[in-house]
Amino acid sequence: MQDERTSRSGKLICASSTESSDILYASGFNAADEFLYFELEGKRFAVVSSLEYQRARAEALRGVEIIECSDIARSFPREERRQHPAVLVSRKFGVTRWLVPQSFPLGHAEKLRAAGVEVVPAAGNFFPERAVKSEREIVSIRGSMAATEDAMRQVEAFLRESKVRPDGLLELNGEVLLCEWIRAEIEASFKRKGFSAFRTIIACGRDGSAPHCIGSGPVRAGEPLVADIFPRSDRTGYWGDMTRTFVKGKASPVVLRAFKAVLRASEEVLKVLRAGRPGSEYHALAARILESEGFRTERGADGLPRGFFHGLGHGVGLDIHEDPRLAPSGVTPLEPGNVVSVEPGLYDPAWGGIRLEDLVVIRADGCENFCTMPKELEIP
Amino acid sequence: MQDERTSRSGKLICASSTESSDILYASGFNAADEFLYFELEGKRFAVVSSLEYQRARAEALRGVEIIECSDIARSFPREERRQHPAVLVSRKFGVTRWLVPQSFPLGHAEKLRAAGVEVVPAAGNFFPERAVKSEREIVSIRGSMAATEDAMRQVEAFLRESKVRPDGLLELNGEVLLCEWIRAEIEASFKRKGFSAFRTIIACGRDGSAPHCIGSGPVRAGEPLVADIFPRSDRTGYWGDMTRTFVKGKASPVVLRAFKAVLRASEEVLKVLRAGRPGSEYHALAARILESEGFRTERGADGLPRGFFHGLGHGVGLDIHEDPRLAPSGVTPLEPGNVVSVEPGLYDPAWGGIRLEDLVVIRADGCENFCTMPKELEIP
Repeated sequence: MQDERTSRSGKLICASSTESSDILYASGFNAADEFLYFELEGKRFAVVSSLEYQRARAEALRGVEIIECSDIARSFPREERRQHPAVLVSRKFGVTRWLVPQSFPLGHAEKLRAAGVEVVPAAGNFFPERAVKSEREIVSIRGSMAATEDAMRQVEAFLRESKVRPDGLLELNGEVLLCEWIRAEIEASFKRKGFSAFRTIIACGRDGSAPHCIGSGPVRAGEPLVADIFPRSDRTGYWGDMTRTFVKGKASPVVLRAFKAVLRASEEVLKVLRAGRPGSEYHALAARILESEGFRTERGADGLPRGFFHGLGHGVGLDIHEDPRLAPSGVTPLEPGNVVSVEPGLYDPAWGGIRLEDLVVIRADGCENFCTMPKELEIP
Repeated sequence: MQDERTSRSGKLICASSTESSDILYASGFNAADEFLYFELEGKRFAVVSSLEYQRARAEALRGVEIIECSDIARSFPREERRQHPAVLVSRKFGVTRWLVPQSFPLGHAEKLRAAGVEVVPAAGNFFPERAVKSEREIVSIRGSMAATEDAMRQVEAFLRESKVRPDGLLELNGEVLLCEWIRAEIEASFKRKGFSAFRTIIACGRDGSAPHCIGSGPVRAGEPLVADIFPRSDRTGYWGDMTRTFVKGKASPVVLRAFKAVLRASEEVLKVLRAGRPGSEYHALAARILESEGFRTERGADGLPRGFFHGLGHGVGLDIHEDPRLAPSGVTPLEPGNVVSVEPGLYDPAWGGIRLEDLVVIRADGCENFCTMPKELEIP
């Protein structure tokens, strides 16, 4: 029979909340510097510096016992205190094996192994339950999406209130309307509501053909403007994510055709999306529709991709991109409570990009859309 | 003699720019999703998804060759393409040994090792040269600090313009002045200038005694308000960091005494700070001064620490907390071009916190302070 003290096994994370939403999810503690979280025999602990001790006691989830790092160190002889806190914790609690996330820092793992502690990365997600949102989490996401929709309506209003100048640029309150200005206004009003947004995509014309290009320069009439808005709540940590594409004035025939194709893909997917089937099937459905509308996905002679070359959607929660995926890699069946984006898109350096993104929660018999804003391309 | 193709060794990072400033530093490419960066025989490469390909080509540093992930995969038989991109890259480029950062994900390391590739975490920082800022980086930090000082002056102006009500709360424009409101105003104006700030500390009274407590509720006259402002430039990625402590009206004797002690520690350190000595010595100097002024660092009967229980300072660059440290752990001599905070502080749950933080660049014969704002406690 093994000595109980020398055969204990637990779960361990070493990360900042910036690097790891797992540690934020498990501890409820938001810290910019690395700290330790571990689970052992049904108990949960966070090990923080003295700098964070008081705050951790006040802010961490109930049931998480807060330990000050120097308290652990003090129980060892002076010459041993310089060891990594994870090593000291393992020795103090008699842990011989840790299950850790895939993202666990290799440097720490080697130190633990050198101290005789087994370190095993989890096969998949560390907290697979994060993919299924509780009703409380859904309330948080709904709050983030309400703010996101407000911002999207603001973008639409800026375009509606702008005048088209003879040179095709837009003018608002006597100034040329710039992508940078729209982004700054949107992101500033998020901060006033307790949300942080960064790299908000306001990309006009050719900029829109690179899906994550944030866009710069003047908005031009007749060209598609992709607005992809994804703020994070400073309070809850949950993200919103939504995209609309607008054209001030009249769209060109190819842009109109691309918009209708993307709209059809969006509507047909939303009509059938529900628990039970893998996300990959919805991706394939969207890809088929876009192809049947005459838009092939391929690499151009310039080396740049065109067509539909990203996943149809991704989970959204404490991470902006998380499981499950509506993409070829999404092979497990969707479950009620998954929150996923549905964002078909078409891109071409010749005319730009069209993307329409809703965020939905998967239910047993369908999906519930957080977005209420209609999908209209042209703004008079 | 070894086969050249099977004995190649390089440097590898797999991370998002959010998780790793190393990958941002080396590639110049800012991406929310993980990508690969590697150096091999003097050449530099980034491997990105098709979603990011066009943007990476436009935005990454010159000299970094951009490879689309699926191009690597396509050179393998279909049944092997599902392997991790780092494994495919190793095989395609004949790499048998990667030097990786300490933070390299353990899960990826195990996949590489299973494929016969050696993975060695760097002993210290992956790019130790990041601690010594180039003049170009210093210009970026100066820009972030100019915005930071503007915001600090705004906080001071809010307090100056406020009236003290009979109940001791402050009133500005007919409203009770709240820490949350100051934070939102500051963070919103940062966004208009192209900076992101998050968890800005505006902490009054007891809240200020937990150094990273962000603060909430009304600002009260006569109590110290800690304003710790640290925005990041959306364009350059470099942080600013600065703290002042204010009291609206008259401070209590103990707060005044603590302020004078912290001010003396700040001034004496700034007078002697220069290249050549380790950061730990400056920390010890500040700790000695604070202790000699009658403030001991200890744990109270309530379990909460009081006194000076964090490092005197830390490097600031693409990370808000990076090397070198002005702390017991900072044992290597400071070098010209280090950018470090100098932030002595005193904390006590009985009366709150006092912290004064400047950001300086270390020179051979002294240090140059990015902060010009005086350190004055009481605001009439």
